[in-house]
Formats: sequence, C-alpha cells, structure tokens
Amino acid sequence: MRGFHFTETHHDPHSAARLGRITTPHGTIDTPAFVPVGTQATVKSLTPDDLHTLGVELFFVNTYHTYLRPNLDVIKTFGGLHAFMGWHGPIITDSGGFQVFSLARPKYKPLDRDEENATLVNISEDGVTFRSHWDGSEHYFTPETSMQYQWTLGSDIHIAFDECTTYPTTPEYARKAMDRTHRWLVRSIAEHARQAASIPNRPYQALYGAIQGSIYEALRKESAHYICSLDTDGIAIGGVSVGESKEEMRQVLDWVMPVLPAQKPRHLLGVGEIDDIFVLIEHGVDTFDCVQPTRIARMGRVYVLPGEGSQGFDIDITHVQYKQDTKPIDPQCSCYTCTHFSRAYLHHLFRVRELLGYRLASLHNLYYINSLVRAIRRSIADGSFLELKKQWLYNK
Amino acid sequence: MRGFHFTETHHDPHSAARLGRITTPHGTIDTPAFVPVGTQATVKSLTPDDLHTLGVELFFVNTYHTYLRPNLDVIKTFGGLHAFMGWHGPIITDSGGFQVFSLARPKYKPLDRDEENATLVNISEDGVTFRSHWDGSEHYFTPETSMQYQWTLGSDIHIAFDECTTYPTTPEYARKAMDRTHRWLVRSIAEHARQAASIPNRPYQALYGAIQGSIYEALRKESAHYICSLDTDGIAIGGVSVGESKEEMRQVLDWVMPVLPAQKPRHLLGVGEIDDIFVLIEHGVDTFDCVQPTRIARMGRVYVLPGEGSQGFDIDITHVQYKQDTKPIDPQCSCYTCTHFSRAYLHHLFRVRELLGYRLASLHNLYYINSLVRAIRRSIADGSFLELKKQWLYNK
Repeated sequence: MRGFHFTETHHDPHSAARLGRITTPHGTIDTPAFVPVGTQATVKSLTPDDLHTLGVELFFVNTYHTYLRPNLDVIKTFGGLHAFMGWHGPIITDSGGFQVFSLARPKYKPLDRDEENATLVNISEDGVTFRSHWDGSEHYFTPETSMQYQWTLGSDIHIAFDECTTYPTTPEYARKAMDRTHRWLVRSIAEHARQAASIPNRPYQALYGAIQGSIYEALRKESAHYICSLDTDGIAIGGVSVGESKEEMRQVLDWVMPVLPAQKPRHLLGVGEIDDIFVLIEHGVDTFDCVQPTRIARMGRVYVLPGEGSQGFDIDITHVQYKQDTKPIDPQCSCYTCTHFSRAYLHHLFRVRELLGYRLASLHNLYYINSLVRAIRRSIADGSFLELKKQWLYNK
Repeated sequence: MRGFHFTETHHDPHSAARLGRITTPHGTIDTPAFVPVGTQATVKSLTPDDLHTLGVELFFVNTYHTYLRPNLDVIKTFGGLHAFMGWHGPIITDSGGFQVFSLARPKYKPLDRDEENATLVNISEDGVTFRSHWDGSEHYFTPETSMQYQWTLGSDIHIAFDECTTYPTTPEYARKAMDRTHRWLVRSIAEHARQAASIPNRPYQALYGAIQGSIYEALRKESAHYICSLDTDGIAIGGVSVGESKEEMRQVLDWVMPVLPAQKPRHLLGVGEIDDIFVLIEHGVDTFDCVQPTRIARMGRVYVLPGEGSQGFDIDITHVQYKQDTKPIDPQCSCYTCTHFSRAYLHHLFRVRELLGYRLASLHNLYYINSLVRAIRRSIADGSFLELKKQWLYNK
C-alpha cells in the first residue's frame, strides 16, 4: 500500500469520460478535477482557505519557481510546501522541465535547439543547464535532482523530468527530445524509488511519467506506449500547451488516450479553457491544471454563461458598458463576488487598478470553473455528459 | 432627532481621553476608533467583510477620488457608496479639499499659493478650480458642491469644505486660508441643511466643521472657537498630516482640544501611527483616519509588539533575516495572517511580488491597530490608560 491510489468509479457509456477518485496522504481528489496553479507557491491573490471554500482539492505548484524562490532550503525548514504555504490538501508539482525550457528561450520559434540554445539552455544527455530568470545565475537540473527537489517540496504527485519541445518543432528534433525524455523517465523512476526508501515511514509521494512527441502521431503513440510500459503511479500528458491549436490538442488526445491503462490517473499539463475542458474530459483526462482562469481574471476577463459573453465564455469587465451595471457578473452565480458586488464595482476596481479587483475576479473565475467541473461530474454520473457538452459548446 | 448623535460614556480621570459612542443611520461606532481609509472606495486588497471581521465600525472614503472615478453618476445609480462598495456600516467622507490641494501641487514647499498655483489649482472666494490627476480635465469644487457630492455619496458623516494649507506656510497665508475656510463653513452648513430638507424622510447625514490654522497658536485657537460656535454635528481637525512634526501635532492638539465642547465628537484627519494614537486619544480625539497601517503593509512593513522591531513598531518583512523564519509575524497575534502563515512565507510573497502578500500584511496591520485601540478603550474604562501609554511608548 503506497498511500496513493486511483479508482475509476464510473465510466460514461457514450464517451471516454470517467469519474474517479485519487487518494493521497493529504486527502482525496474527486475526478475529473480542475487544478489551479500556484506558480510561486500561491494562487495569485487567494489564500489556501479561499481555495478550499471554492472546492479545490488539488493544488499545482511549479518546481522551477519554488526552487529559485524562496529556494529549497527554505522549504526544507518547513518540511515541505504544505506547511510553508499553509495548504494541507494534496499538491502536485511539475518536473521543472517546462519552465527550464520555456523561460529561457524565445517562444514559438522553430529552431534546432541544439544550436540555438547553446547560450541560454544547455541540454545534454545528463541534464540541463539554465539561467535563472530572476538574476541570471546558472543552475543545473537532471532527472535525479528534479526527483530530489520534488521530494523536498513534499508534493503528493511528482512529474518525471521531461523535455518539452518548442512549437512548432521538426519531427527529427521531436524524436530526439522524446527519446531523451524516455531515458530520463527510467532515471527518474530509479531516483524516485531511492528517495522513497531513504527515509523510513516517509509518506509516499506518487510519480507520473510524462508523454511527449509534439504533434506527430507516430511519436505520440510511441511515447504513450513507452511511458505506460514503465512502473509509474500515473500518466501526465505534456507539450500540448505550448502553441498547438485546439484541433491539434484534440488530435494528440485522440492518439494518446486510447493507449492509457484504465487503472492509472491521467493529468493533462497546462490546459483548461472552458471549451478545452469538455474535450479533455470527453477523452478521459482526470486532472488538468491551467493558469488561464486566474490569469484572465487579473486582466478583468470574467466568466459568464455561454451566450452571455460577446465572444467565448467571458466578458471584459473593464469595458465602458459595465460602468453603471448594477447586476453581478453572473446573476445565477453563487460565488462570493457575485453575491456581494456589482459589475460596476468590479469595473471601477479594475479601472483604478485596485488590488481587490484581482481578488474578486479570481474568486469568481475559479468558482465558475469548479462549478462547471462539478456539473460535468454529475452529468457523467447520470449519463448526460455529451448533452451538457452540446449545451455549452453549441455555438462553437 | 437627527438619527446621528454622540454620547461620551466615560472620561479618563487622568487625561482628556474619553470613551464614547457615535450613533448613525448605518450603525454605531465605539470611540476612540481607528478609521481605515478606502481612498478609491476600497481599502486596498480587503473586502468589507474583512473590515467587519477586523472590528472596523467606520469606513473613510475620499470624496475627491470617488467624484473622479467611478464618478457621482455611478454612485447615484446605486443610491450611494454603501450599496456601491457593499459596506453597510457607517461611512465618513472628507470634503475633497485636501486632495484638491495636495494632488495638484508640489509637496512641502513654502509658497505664496496665490501665485504658485495659478495654473494648477485656482482658489477664489467662491471655490477651487483644479485638474484631475487622472486625465488633466478641469473641475470646480465649492462648499456647496462638496456638500451636494457628499449627500450623493450618502456617507453618514460629511466634512465641510476647507482649505488645507501647505506645510510650512506663512502666518499671513495661514490666516487668509483659515478665514476663507470659516466663510466656507457657513456656506457648507446652509447647503447641508438645504440638502437634508430636499428629500422627505432622507436618512440624516451628519456634518463636521474643520479646524485649520496651520501651526500658529493664535490661528488654531481662533479657528477652534469659531468652528465650535457654529451649529455642526461634530468637529474635524485638519491640516496636521501635511508635514508637521509629531511635536507640532501635539502642540496643535494642546491648543485646540481644550476649546472643544464635550458633547460633539472630534475627528482628527489623516493621523494614525502607533505613537500618535496614544497622543491623540490622550487629548480627547474620538475618531481618526490614516492610510499608514495599510500603506506600510503594502511595503512589507508589519507591526510587532514594542521592543520587537529594530526601530519603531514594525519590522520590514522583506529583510533577508526573515527568509527562513518559521514564526508568525507576531506570535501573540490572533489575526488571520499570524494564525496561518509564517514570516518566511510573507517574506517570500513580498520578494516575488505576489498579491497575496499585500493582503496578508494589510489584514495583520489593521487587526493589530484595531486590537491596540480596543486595548486602549479598556484601559480608559479601568483608569489605566496612561499606564498603557507608558508601556507602549517607554522607549520613545
């Protein structure tokens, strides 16, 4: 008994959508679940109590960011992220790989990385040298250190060290990076086991392997088969949030998801716009993290019911049309913001750049997305998931 | 029965400190009371619920700021600030005068304002022309419009339109401005009465006259006598937060406070550092507003008990010495921040400029200052006020 397990509790007869429950040493997660991101050990403007009230059960933290600031010595003093952040539920951390590659190089530019990144990120078979985005200091991550760092962070779910390629990239480079990611997973598993055994009675921390392969069918399928063949607690799907279109994401899921074994939980990295959510749950994804709901909240973009927004699922509260609007953001929403404040007040807070605006908009967007995912779980339970999806994506 | 009254409930036998209760249409205020400032219709980073939890009973809002943004049409749509902000307790607004004069001219520079401000702020007997700090648009405030605006804002306590002089200023200019402020008060009272009578059964909104006179004894005393001779609900003391030293503030209070009648509540505008609080309460001030506790909070300066801080009553949480400090800001503090988070976590939030840091520090500082004022009220009740003051200001 590892202290971590996943049970599929119900399968939608009309799609690959499923209900499940992940058990960790810090609590359980009903899936499918949206996972908010606390990049720097905080979901911007919100407390752990806020997240709990919003129904959040799993908290995503970036290893790269916490490694640099506050740094692992500080986290160690607290015995891990849980005590440091004051969040006592389950935590998932990434490998650090995505940020190592994405923060230190130009975005969305096709390149032969071996040349281009010589001075920015230096990738070898052993690991990756990179510079801090804070102070330019040089650091080195390997599959082994990524595991060690995540054990120090004390997260309930770790992700193996992977190379997330740029988008677009060549099939040649995608294969090279994927093969390396596969070799790194073998090393990650070995180091993860060493760490688990190194301290007696250490609460178990789960390890997910990450599927890569860019937008190439053969690579994605090969990666899925390979990752599933190794002994991990769960499966992560990486590299679908770096610039692919929604259609390309759907394709990747079409190729990859049927390969995955039912008994392992699946996490999709970095995706979670409203319409995406239906697509990925339909494909059988269990958990997915995304900064989108909180990021757009801080820009004044707040979710409304389908058809209410001029386009998509949100309105821009900074728009002059909301200046005297006494209605709440969404009259049917029961969130703290909608039950206490008007669109006009939110509009005002954003126009004068008041901190409270970011908080109230973040509370609303996370409440909204958690309510949606709860509704989706109910719809899977009663067999109406595809119907709900049609209602929401009717105009899409 | 005006729906507004003040009762002195207890007087300290050893000083001019007193306990009292202000009754307004939106609730009561136990005095002495610290009044947090919501410059732009929000106490930065906090909700009205937060303020209520912190024990705040009176909320200070700036007329100048809300007049410009969102603007009075928006506030009118909501029937006033209470519904707009979602704060249902008592509100006090200022006249707009302080910001009109302070935001449109260089600070702390002795000047003959009549010349200097010709292009920035234009003062005539009738009123003041000024330019918005947002967009440079021209606006005009008079005693009459200030009253009209405050009735629109719907605050429970208004302050009459006054001219707040620069510091330092000449005795000649101080007299000129004071005499004008006195004439403006007569006009303010007349307009206030017209507004009160203009709508039947309108909930009563109180009016305080403002004492000016810079740092000149004769002027301050004359102003106090004159303001007290007119029929207002309370007395405000202005112009002691524009650059005077703490010693000069004490002098002004020494001159002015003995003149004031016991039956009227006294509000001190813009003062509220920890050591000031003892001094002004000792002089018989009932309420006082100040941005200091929340402003320094957003800089990472958080209150600690006397003797704990390297200097004064706060520590700078951004200092490297707190990087691994697992203690709360103040181990004896029962605020939300201190019962949930460490100094190290606060330090981290400030170092990476996370929004949550501003909120947690603001919650702590306001809790701290409200606790102190509560302790002061208890000490007045049991006759130990001067003893408490000595304990706190021992090293001062």
